[in-house]
Amino acid sequence: MSRVLGIDVGGTKVAIGVSGSDGPVVAGRARLETGPDTLVRALAAARSLDGRPAAVGFSTCGVIRDGVVRLAPNVPGWEGLELPRLLREEFGATPVAIDNDVNAAAAAELRWGALRGVSTGVYLNLGTGLAAALVVGGRVVPGAHGAAGEIGYLQVTPGQAAFADGRVPLEELVSGAGLAARGGALLGRATTAEEVLAARTGPLAELVEETLRVLTMTVANLCVTLDPERLVVGGGMMGAAGLIVPRLADEVRRAVPFPPEIRPGRFTDDAPLLGALALAHAAARA
Amino acid sequence: MSRVLGIDVGGTKVAIGVSGSDGPVVAGRARLETGPDTLVRALAAARSLDGRPAAVGFSTCGVIRDGVVRLAPNVPGWEGLELPRLLREEFGATPVAIDNDVNAAAAAELRWGALRGVSTGVYLNLGTGLAAALVVGGRVVPGAHGAAGEIGYLQVTPGQAAFADGRVPLEELVSGAGLAARGGALLGRATTAEEVLAARTGPLAELVEETLRVLTMTVANLCVTLDPERLVVGGGMMGAAGLIVPRLADEVRRAVPFPPEIRPGRFTDDAPLLGALALAHAAARA
Repeated sequence: MSRVLGIDVGGTKVAIGVSGSDGPVVAGRARLETGPDTLVRALAAARSLDGRPAAVGFSTCGVIRDGVVRLAPNVPGWEGLELPRLLREEFGATPVAIDNDVNAAAAAELRWGALRGVSTGVYLNLGTGLAAALVVGGRVVPGAHGAAGEIGYLQVTPGQAAFADGRVPLEELVSGAGLAARGGALLGRATTAEEVLAARTGPLAELVEETLRVLTMTVANLCVTLDPERLVVGGGMMGAAGLIVPRLADEVRRAVPFPPEIRPGRFTDDAPLLGALALAHAAARA
Repeated sequence: MSRVLGIDVGGTKVAIGVSGSDGPVVAGRARLETGPDTLVRALAAARSLDGRPAAVGFSTCGVIRDGVVRLAPNVPGWEGLELPRLLREEFGATPVAIDNDVNAAAAAELRWGALRGVSTGVYLNLGTGLAAALVVGGRVVPGAHGAAGEIGYLQVTPGQAAFADGRVPLEELVSGAGLAARGGALLGRATTAEEVLAARTGPLAELVEETLRVLTMTVANLCVTLDPERLVVGGGMMGAAGLIVPRLADEVRRAVPFPPEIRPGRFTDDAPLLGALALAHAAARA
């Protein structure tokens, strides 16, 4: 089997890997921080790993719309980048598949992990940001503009400040970054989502409880909407899976007519890179 | 082209029609009220219209799960009915397609109406009840248990009484039946959704405003989740389309990163019967 290349550009890190077999195995890898010229440096690192892949999978923060990256404010120079054209220039006739990081992670779970064999499903990423991938007919749903599952933009309260106001309402409440920011405001010092999620008393514990109430309602509503057979949860906040998963299961049983099975994702930190490799394997066979 | 038969069993009425051409035309029809023996009387009326259809489409309130009707409390004897088996017994080798009324209405809009040519879309039914159909890849998404799009079960407030408590939280607020019940409680007498929606001052107008705020947030959230190219709205509350559609458009522009086009459905009262005929035409060709 020929080797494929995967590149994942996340909010702060770039992961690059090559794989010679159709499984969740990375035969060689490189990592770098995002910054000026992220793409140039990532491609140089990729070339040093494998100059002639059979196919390339690219997982990116944001969404690709009309040939440019959108909704990706965290990586300098990434918003508006003509990523598909630049990758065509780099890789010529080699097949290149691009998707956002959460859809890519769902592709890895579908191909090798906890979503294998699922027809209607949801992949929920509880990471620094908040997003989901919807699975219908065993495939990730792209949506009309590549933005299906971007649930960070959901409103919790009618009329609240929303996308047009530069806000990401649900993500500001329910995400690693949101927990760290709101916890930091309570403490008057910098903190992390891990520290907030570990609190068992006091104002941080109240913040966690409020966050869990909104998260569990959101997930139940997502399950009411799509009627999935399985919900798979990944992302860095799953370090607190023992706190989060039982609450999700209780709420889904309470509020969803046909509650789905809930499973942790098979892949953790590596999920978007493995997703890029899953996209590449699919592109190599197409 | 051979004739097909469509049967629609709604919350209070049964509509039966035959169609000899693949278009939104009903060549002959019958109507009856639901009640004891709804199915027996509907099949007798269908036989009198067309004893030997090439295919049968059946649109029903509730959802079909494990061969029985679920989530259909309004029609006596309907919940738990083994509808697929009974229809096989009636129609033998004739192909029979069954779906819920809102999915069927969406099938009619996809085949002949406002969703024609749409790949990712939403059909929203603002009727006596509240439900939606999700369209992905040009087809209605069934979900894992036939319940995709049953948005009446969505929660608006974290922790509120929900499905397990016998409640249908969003439908109780945002639906023709919900408006009539809540308006009636305000007035101390029976009223209709039409009367409530026509109010321009006083407590009924406040009720309408609150309902629109919840409805528009819900629709924006649905569009954030699925990223449709078009949202089509049907159902009896669309008698107040001049009030509802501009508010939906404003909110979708405000809160959805890629706002879909919004259109009224082509079909109104007839939509589920036309949907049954659309299902029958599809089954006749399969």
